[in-house]
Amino acid sequence: MSNSFGQLFRITTFGESHGKSIGVIIDGCPAGIDFNLDFIVSELNRRRPGQSSITSQRKEDDYPEVLSGVYEGKTTGAPVCIVIANKDQKSADYAHIASQFRPSHADYTYFIKYGTRDFRGGGRSSARETANWVAAGAVAKMLLKRVGIHITAYVSSVGDIVLKKNYKVLNLSEAEQNIVRCPDPASADQMIELIKKIRKQGDTIGGVVSCVAENMIPGLGEPVFNKLHAALGHAMMSINAVKGFEYGSGFAGTKMKGSQHNDQIISEKGKVTTRTNFSGGIQGGISNGADIYFNVAFKPVATLMIDQESLNEAGEQVIIQGKGRHDPCVVPRAVPIVEAMAALVIADFVMISQSTKLGALSDHK
Amino acid sequence: MSNSFGQLFRITTFGESHGKSIGVIIDGCPAGIDFNLDFIVSELNRRRPGQSSITSQRKEDDYPEVLSGVYEGKTTGAPVCIVIANKDQKSADYAHIASQFRPSHADYTYFIKYGTRDFRGGGRSSARETANWVAAGAVAKMLLKRVGIHITAYVSSVGDIVLKKNYKVLNLSEAEQNIVRCPDPASADQMIELIKKIRKQGDTIGGVVSCVAENMIPGLGEPVFNKLHAALGHAMMSINAVKGFEYGSGFAGTKMKGSQHNDQIISEKGKVTTRTNFSGGIQGGISNGADIYFNVAFKPVATLMIDQESLNEAGEQVIIQGKGRHDPCVVPRAVPIVEAMAALVIADFVMISQSTKLGALSDHK
Amino acid sequence: MSNSFGQLFRITTFGESHGKSIGVIIDGCPAGIDFNLDFIVSELNRRRPGQSSITSQRKEDDYPEVLSGVYEGKTTGAPVCIVIANKDQKSADYAHIASQFRPSHADYTYFIKYGTRDFRGGGRSSARETANWVAAGAVAKMLLKRVGIHITAYVSSVGDIVLKKNYKVLNLSEAEQNIVRCPDPASADQMIELIKKIRKQGDTIGGVVSCVAENMIPGLGEPVFNKLHAALGHAMMSINAVKGFEYGSGFAGTKMKGSQHNDQIISEKGKVTTRTNFSGGIQGGISNGADIYFNVAFKPVATLMIDQESLNEAGEQVIIQGKGRHDPCVVPRAVPIVEAMAALVIADFVMISQSTKLGALSDHK
Amino acid sequence: MSNSFGQLFRITTFGESHGKSIGVIIDGCPAGIDFNLDFIVSELNRRRPGQSSITSQRKEDDYPEVLSGVYEGKTTGAPVCIVIANKDQKSADYAHIASQFRPSHADYTYFIKYGTRDFRGGGRSSARETANWVAAGAVAKMLLKRVGIHITAYVSSVGDIVLKKNYKVLNLSEAEQNIVRCPDPASADQMIELIKKIRKQGDTIGGVVSCVAENMIPGLGEPVFNKLHAALGHAMMSINAVKGFEYGSGFAGTKMKGSQHNDQIISEKGKVTTRTNFSGGIQGGISNGADIYFNVAFKPVATLMIDQESLNEAGEQVIIQGKGRHDPCVVPRAVPIVEAMAALVIADFVMISQSTKLGALSDHK
Repeated sequence: MSNSFGQLFRITTFGESHGKSIGVIIDGCPAGIDFNLDFIVSELNRRRPGQSSITSQRKEDDYPEVLSGVYEGKTTGAPVCIVIANKDQKSADYAHIASQFRPSHADYTYFIKYGTRDFRGGGRSSARETANWVAAGAVAKMLLKRVGIHITAYVSSVGDIVLKKNYKVLNLSEAEQNIVRCPDPASADQMIELIKKIRKQGDTIGGVVSCVAENMIPGLGEPVFNKLHAALGHAMMSINAVKGFEYGSGFAGTKMKGSQHNDQIISEKGKVTTRTNFSGGIQGGISNGADIYFNVAFKPVATLMIDQESLNEAGEQVIIQGKGRHDPCVVPRAVPIVEAMAALVIADFVMISQSTKLGALSDHK
Repeated sequence: MSNSFGQLFRITTFGESHGKSIGVIIDGCPAGIDFNLDFIVSELNRRRPGQSSITSQRKEDDYPEVLSGVYEGKTTGAPVCIVIANKDQKSADYAHIASQFRPSHADYTYFIKYGTRDFRGGGRSSARETANWVAAGAVAKMLLKRVGIHITAYVSSVGDIVLKKNYKVLNLSEAEQNIVRCPDPASADQMIELIKKIRKQGDTIGGVVSCVAENMIPGLGEPVFNKLHAALGHAMMSINAVKGFEYGSGFAGTKMKGSQHNDQIISEKGKVTTRTNFSGGIQGGISNGADIYFNVAFKPVATLMIDQESLNEAGEQVIIQGKGRHDPCVVPRAVPIVEAMAALVIADFVMISQSTKLGALSDHK
Repeated sequence: MSNSFGQLFRITTFGESHGKSIGVIIDGCPAGIDFNLDFIVSELNRRRPGQSSITSQRKEDDYPEVLSGVYEGKTTGAPVCIVIANKDQKSADYAHIASQFRPSHADYTYFIKYGTRDFRGGGRSSARETANWVAAGAVAKMLLKRVGIHITAYVSSVGDIVLKKNYKVLNLSEAEQNIVRCPDPASADQMIELIKKIRKQGDTIGGVVSCVAENMIPGLGEPVFNKLHAALGHAMMSINAVKGFEYGSGFAGTKMKGSQHNDQIISEKGKVTTRTNFSGGIQGGISNGADIYFNVAFKPVATLMIDQESLNEAGEQVIIQGKGRHDPCVVPRAVPIVEAMAALVIADFVMISQSTKLGALSDHK
Repeated sequence: MSNSFGQLFRITTFGESHGKSIGVIIDGCPAGIDFNLDFIVSELNRRRPGQSSITSQRKEDDYPEVLSGVYEGKTTGAPVCIVIANKDQKSADYAHIASQFRPSHADYTYFIKYGTRDFRGGGRSSARETANWVAAGAVAKMLLKRVGIHITAYVSSVGDIVLKKNYKVLNLSEAEQNIVRCPDPASADQMIELIKKIRKQGDTIGGVVSCVAENMIPGLGEPVFNKLHAALGHAMMSINAVKGFEYGSGFAGTKMKGSQHNDQIISEKGKVTTRTNFSGGIQGGISNGADIYFNVAFKPVATLMIDQESLNEAGEQVIIQGKGRHDPCVVPRAVPIVEAMAALVIADFVMISQSTKLGALSDHK
């Protein structure tokens, strides 16, 4: 059951990085949604390695094949299965670590849990899996389009280079104009420079992805154990290499007084809104209609081009060699993944919210 | 379904702060666990208001009544229902806000979502609910006792007063020796002083609760959508007033290089372990046997003793008066809540982990 | 998780027959439903023992106490907890079987599964639990009232006395006019006579409850694993003593030819309908708007007033004495239970059906 | 969520009869199970059309492709995805019914529910889907092999030809020796003759499949809402064309007295057993170690070679022509499907049962 996510708009995924293919079943997508395969391809292209000089040079030419659930350009209400073939597998790249535990990878924990592991590319623990999420998230975005909700993520820090500007003063669409996906060109340049320097060292660096959901519907979120931000947090913490999640004021809010932090409720053009938005668009786990914004912390990639000491399955000390094709910094490619997971969560809550509408219930009669 | 949490060790809760009582059903607790009612009482006492000079003076003399699932001192495998009566309800305290939306409370979002609200004490959005979690968490701790896992939370910051010491150099059991629940006496004094000052101002302040799970079993956690840290994050984000969650290196890890951050795997007395533990005891969503540690960010309490501008249900501007009995800082009382939610998550994963043990399967034959 | 039922309109129950009380949490009930406590009482009265000369003389004066989720006569969207105290417990009645396994009871299986058992009244396996279901089902009926769906169950056989008439030619409301709950007065008399005769023998007898859902909404049911009839079957098979379930033509349909069995689709007053209804109102797992009807088979009650041979926990042969207060035939009291479970299933599917309505989705914008 | 089945051993399926392929993800299968692809193929061959003179002449040369979750002949703990291509699709066969509602098919209900339908072969409502279940069931059987449980289904009636012998006096392995899959050769001949006669008439006929699970583990099943027989019933009612389910004494049990029906508990060679087994191996929803047996009622196939009146989407009266390649009687091919669903249910309960074993819990320490 642990390979499914969501309640009504629910995905179930499969696939290892070096198997025949990976894929996702989207179960619960309503019938009649306009299905745009090109959009899925373009979202996958935003995620794939090899897209720029600061990402892994591995080539995953991801082409999503839709096996079910779509007929004449629309979803049918049946489960939508999307499969993506694994093409550029170089299992040989992994032969040297077949019985070694790479530091801060999942090699040891998979071995101890499952008693076996598919060492080629990390098997199920590989970030290859996130291609499934991006494909499914693209379908969730198609649904959200009908209700007008728009989700945008961007890189807000790489190592010590931190974008200090609030998303409100940024033009978020600029994020896609540079290879690091930071909407502030000056910061973007610094980030790119840092990543290049780190890569030369054979090292890696962490960073933060920020995300904003605009044109939100109020009333989404299901207290007490399915609060909107708890589900978003769960989704983000599911992404490989994530170490933290905060929304609204986040950790900085812990240093504030209530008199500073409380969002005064006001009426603007006859609409209820708030003067500030430290709440991050969510109160008591339910959206209030204001923008939702949150940050996701990514650790530095664990695969280095530097030799490291470790153990093998026999418990002997070994040297893990720095080889392979990996990202020096994961955040630029994580941007579409964060968006996808956010879209999956919010689409699900839109549907859950629908289920309790009494007006609609009476229409049946 | 949103009032249930957990998969095999699963709780379902009910109750408003000003109804007759609140309660929790624990479904899936194995039969034969030693059931200690006194322990539940002591855990509830750690959470209840009125326990010290820096918490709310509201009195909740919480006595858990066990309605089912326990027979002759042991769990029977049937659902355990624990009910806690609401005694010290002063609904009159809330009359003045019956139709007003308190800033940064859930008043407006509940109103917009449910079309109605039980204004007395925040209804379902009240932190009163967390008494259910503490009671259920105490039962989870009884189960964890059998496998030796031990969970301890403590206050690591209040406003700007930050405990900078690593949990390894602290004596965590000292946390319960002072009213702010910080294991470093010097920091504790400063925190208490700050809270008292803030309260005098009629204001509130945020803070951070840290938590450690020791003597962990390796192999807990279910990739890819039920990773151990994702479930912990979901649990923590469910707690009222929480704005962020990080584990292991957390947000600080985003500024580190891979060569600093990677935990070198070593053999110590024939046991696999790591030289550092930036991973926070979890790799690829699965525990590796090292300590799990994480931080939970709490915003300042939204109820102030200061007047605030807001709107009422009719959309008219009103002044919300500062009245009632509330905490100037929520983190000291949040400590047992964080522990309880962590215990619920880990107990659940212990059971899930059991379900796949092939050796045990063969024993059936 | 096994004490919860339903997906969006979801109940979780607790309680043993001889504990302090039993109860149910209804999670997911929409806000704003008119809540009628008297109706719950009247439904419980239809189920309770001691209501007539052919039921158990045990007295359960069931009074439902609503602990949460209702405010000023309406549901609030919060979980509704209903608790029913156990009053007429005579644990002494069970002392003689404390360590004995009653034939065809759950004594042995509970003992083997849980390693312990609360022998008093069967613990969790007691039909006392069904009072929870009737209470929750009454709330489901309140929801179904808004959409106009009406559910009626009745006794259609007791032992060899079989009501051969189709429900269409019966006046179902007459079922409540006699103590056996058969809508055909002549058959009812025969059934009552048979039950009285059986009781005199200290024996028990089985029977069938039939159920009809009228004024159905088309489109309810979720293929492929949550077909409407599969969920109804699951619900009915959950009721104590049930051995079988069939809907529409049922087992008799296995002897028919397709040319006889197919329901010809016709237009009647501009509405799509069928000439016959062997389908039982469901095709491909989805309601077609025609009446749903089904039968539920109940075995004879296992508790006899006749001595029986058996084993005790030590594996020694013992004589189980015929004692206690039990029903000679369970079907009259099962009628409201069958209705309640059907209401829970259908209310759930109404809500699930709501969740995918695209028109409503667009209204958000 | 409605395309998933099971809790810990959980399948999620996709695919329409006339799409590119169908498939199933098995999530939760423990690591280390011996994986036998040939066995899956042989099970699919038992289900496929065209296997004998009394089944549909449609050819589905089902070859299961395993995309994930298996490595070097063993399951890895990762989700196992099995895809089966659709090869012998003749969409043209369905062109004549593109906008017509076939009587007693799901055409009308899918249309009303989803607002659209993929008319080619019934889309998602096609029995083609059951190939997924047979493939997944084969994997469940691999798991059950480790615990020794053995499941066998067979045809026990076709129309009026009823096999009256109890399974105990039959040699169940003989079922696979004839094309109707009835273990009694004399009855088998009569059934085959009847099916051939019916087919000549262009008509169809119903029947019953019986199933036995031998060498059962006691203690499987999760009261109160996941009783073993309720889950089996749910599984069987999910199969296309099923109208009823009964276990143990079933509907016949409703005519029995308690003194006849109760299974006397005895000790046989130091093992607890019962003199009779009207309970069908399950008491209180939990297996007692005796054989489980149950019957599944199948209606006559709805597709006839005879013209039928019906309506089209515009509400106009039309004649549905009898064309295509269909089974005159579904029960012979349903045998492996019934076995597969039973295996899925029981494998799931074996795993759930594992999760609560306290002895194993203590082993962790």
